[in-house]
Amino acid sequence: MEELKERIRKDGKVRGNDVLKVDRFLNHQMDVALFAEIGKEFEQRFAGCGVNKILTIEASGIGIACITAQFFHCPVLFAKKTKTKNIAGEVYTAKVESFTHGRSYDIIVAKEFLHAGDRVLIIDDFLANGAALTGLIKLAEEAGAQVVGTGIVIEKAFQPGGERIRSKGIRVESLVKIKSMNEENGVVFVED
Amino acid sequence: MEELKERIRKDGKVRGNDVLKVDRFLNHQMDVALFAEIGKEFEQRFAGCGVNKILTIEASGIGIACITAQFFHCPVLFAKKTKTKNIAGEVYTAKVESFTHGRSYDIIVAKEFLHAGDRVLIIDDFLANGAALTGLIKLAEEAGAQVVGTGIVIEKAFQPGGERIRSKGIRVESLVKIKSMNEENGVVFVED
Repeated sequence: MEELKERIRKDGKVRGNDVLKVDRFLNHQMDVALFAEIGKEFEQRFAGCGVNKILTIEASGIGIACITAQFFHCPVLFAKKTKTKNIAGEVYTAKVESFTHGRSYDIIVAKEFLHAGDRVLIIDDFLANGAALTGLIKLAEEAGAQVVGTGIVIEKAFQPGGERIRSKGIRVESLVKIKSMNEENGVVFVED
Repeated sequence: MEELKERIRKDGKVRGNDVLKVDRFLNHQMDVALFAEIGKEFEQRFAGCGVNKILTIEASGIGIACITAQFFHCPVLFAKKTKTKNIAGEVYTAKVESFTHGRSYDIIVAKEFLHAGDRVLIIDDFLANGAALTGLIKLAEEAGAQVVGTGIVIEKAFQPGGERIRSKGIRVESLVKIKSMNEENGVVFVED
């Protein structure tokens, strides 16, 4: 997605060799006009897949998911991060091992909102090691829902998450894929 | 807002005399078609106010804020909740004393995204004791930004937050105001 590459070149900030700060437009301040372009692109890529629910995770996935959902005319469900044990029976739970923060947490969704027969599109802003995405897929699978695919805004293709998820047979559509980056030269994208 | 009252009557669940669960459409599963009606209503109420930034707080405010921002053609900035002390200088910080959860936390926004001269509309899903909203107003004021008003989806008018905020001279527009509620009879709204 060319517009997104340009925006990353213009407003993204590389820290070290693996941190890309996009808080100017994606995950702190949020450019909703760009989100509409992102949503439209996901709509095109997942057209005809019968998506009836978008699943994401708090917090920074929520804005992108909501605007994308307008194109699919379906509701959004966001998984909540929690450190407290939840009452079994009412929620689906998955453990997420965060490589970035070196800690683990549980994510939950209420069972009443995710069902067998649901055709779920999972949306998130980043894919790096795939920890959060793996947890979201597990929540959907526990519910017996069908994951029609995952729509990612920025994939760090030099980290193993994308391959991990694809090797499970899950479709991953990343709007841009980053091959490498460093502070001097910025971001190098994987060629489309 | 009649459509919202109907939805609360249909899908809201009262617990005790003060908890209203609206996770079926507002703050867990999210009905983005309803959010568009909410955004349109905020647009009408704050027309001509020169809003150039919408400020909200993670997590459940983000979806409503993003869809509302489409009507104002402006970016969203969401305050992050944090328990860690942040580097002074780079962020504005406010302490929030949560009555609901009996604990306090800090909220932060990066200074680079909030400025003197900004005309800020603050959006949130609930107004009860006003703790989060007071923190958001403090962040905006620290930045020297002008708070043109606050747009709330559901105000619990039997709790003191609305009066507290209005008594500071801040405009509060709540799409529905709840006068009282209980498990037997459901929700009683303040008459428009």
